[in-house]
Amino acid sequence: MDYIIRAANVEDCKDLTRMIMELAEHEKVTDHVKITQKDLEQDGFSKNPFFHGIIAEVPEQHRSKEGHTKIGYALYFYSYSTWKGRAVYMVDLYVMPEFRGKGIGKALMSKVAQLGLAAGCTKLNFIVLNSNKSSLDFYFRQGCSDVTADLGYHYMSCSGEALERLAQP
Amino acid sequence: MDYIIRAANVEDCKDLTRMIMELAEHEKVTDHVKITQKDLEQDGFSKNPFFHGIIAEVPEQHRSKEGHTKIGYALYFYSYSTWKGRAVYMVDLYVMPEFRGKGIGKALMSKVAQLGLAAGCTKLNFIVLNSNKSSLDFYFRQGCSDVTADLGYHYMSCSGEALERLAQP
Repeated sequence: MDYIIRAANVEDCKDLTRMIMELAEHEKVTDHVKITQKDLEQDGFSKNPFFHGIIAEVPEQHRSKEGHTKIGYALYFYSYSTWKGRAVYMVDLYVMPEFRGKGIGKALMSKVAQLGLAAGCTKLNFIVLNSNKSSLDFYFRQGCSDVTADLGYHYMSCSGEALERLAQP
Repeated sequence: MDYIIRAANVEDCKDLTRMIMELAEHEKVTDHVKITQKDLEQDGFSKNPFFHGIIAEVPEQHRSKEGHTKIGYALYFYSYSTWKGRAVYMVDLYVMPEFRGKGIGKALMSKVAQLGLAAGCTKLNFIVLNSNKSSLDFYFRQGCSDVTADLGYHYMSCSGEALERLAQP
């Protein structure tokens, strides 16, 4: 199937919001999603963006059952490690179910890897639900390693009232 | 003890490199550290920095046994979540052993939280070695949650030949 992978722009935020919700439904975490189309527009497409995005798009004749031509995405940002230096962090990787099995997810992740290498990064990092065996299998096939399982690093977070309290001088 | 927390500048990279190695020695991972002072200078203090840093500094009369006045640091960068939006990611948090137990680590982390909230972030994220019980206890006391233990998210990474292969079109 024909498709292109291209940089996301502000006009993609409506479809990004839709696909972010589809991914959350797939992972059964829709109650965690607070983000809106306007947040994405502000946070990804202003002067100092918090993330960058790429979009997978198919021609009109291959549009989805609901009429969508933007059928996959990856978001990423540049990050840093005091061991290895520059890294790229992939926030999400998503392809709509009816377009899976065609190499589009691999192509999106490959593009993030290309962009990372071009920026001097030596690592591509991300988090994944350990129960999502099909995703894990996909990532292991790409040669990714499970840093949590191999080295014992846990992902930690502080938010809400705890974050407000922590920020008190 | 008197100390100040201030933004890091390029002249701090020598001490940052020293303390990054001290932290790696503490975590017994010195063989993983490839970063140099020059890397830090380029990556943190050029036009589009990959990270930001803060330094804990004591007056001359309280300098360390080896004569250091820069005795702690935290590095961070801004990141993103498609659930909650803007987040700040803390790369490292370190205080030299002879200056621990004085609230300096807490003050450094508090400053990262303040900077994050000021930038509109709703989360402070980081990874920690699950075997490092004293650090875990400290983070739990600050109200942090273990996303890996609670939700099953694993930290994954792709590097080296696997990353080069992944980036092939």
